[in-house]
Amino acid sequence: MKVRVHITLKTGVLDPQGKAIQHALDGLGFAGVDGVRQGKYIEIDLAETDPAKARETAEAMCARLLANTVIEDYRVDVGS
Amino acid sequence: MKVRVHITLKTGVLDPQGKAIQHALDGLGFAGVDGVRQGKYIEIDLAETDPAKARETAEAMCARLLANTVIEDYRVDVGS
Repeated sequence: MKVRVHITLKTGVLDPQGKAIQHALDGLGFAGVDGVRQGKYIEIDLAETDPAKARETAEAMCARLLANTVIEDYRVDVGS
Repeated sequence: MKVRVHITLKTGVLDPQGKAIQHALDGLGFAGVDGVRQGKYIEIDLAETDPAKARETAEAMCARLLANTVIEDYRVDVGS
């Protein structure tokens, strides 16, 4: 079962990568860019076939390894 | 208008970051992890209010700056 995890910086946390992208887009002539935030996207293939258990496992993975919960939020989507 | 961009490595391209995460998860005792792929997730706030134009702009941004189209695929989702 495939699990998709989005890890994003919490609102208010400075995002220098996002700022760099925004600056580069301005430099390339893309107008009207009001903001850019960069996060991580992780796809995990789990042997688990029960969606509820897969979600639980993925959330434990986020809390223990994937996300820094002091400054980052995570979202888990369980797919096929 | 908010645009969400997912940038992932093409199938077949080696993903050392994903392998490192998989190894770390194994080390923490998470069993049944068959594979991990890491990508990027970028949220862009555009002044543009027309969804079709916002998508077109975001795809141009991906092709010109955000993604390395030799080894990466991108997906654009236009939201509110």
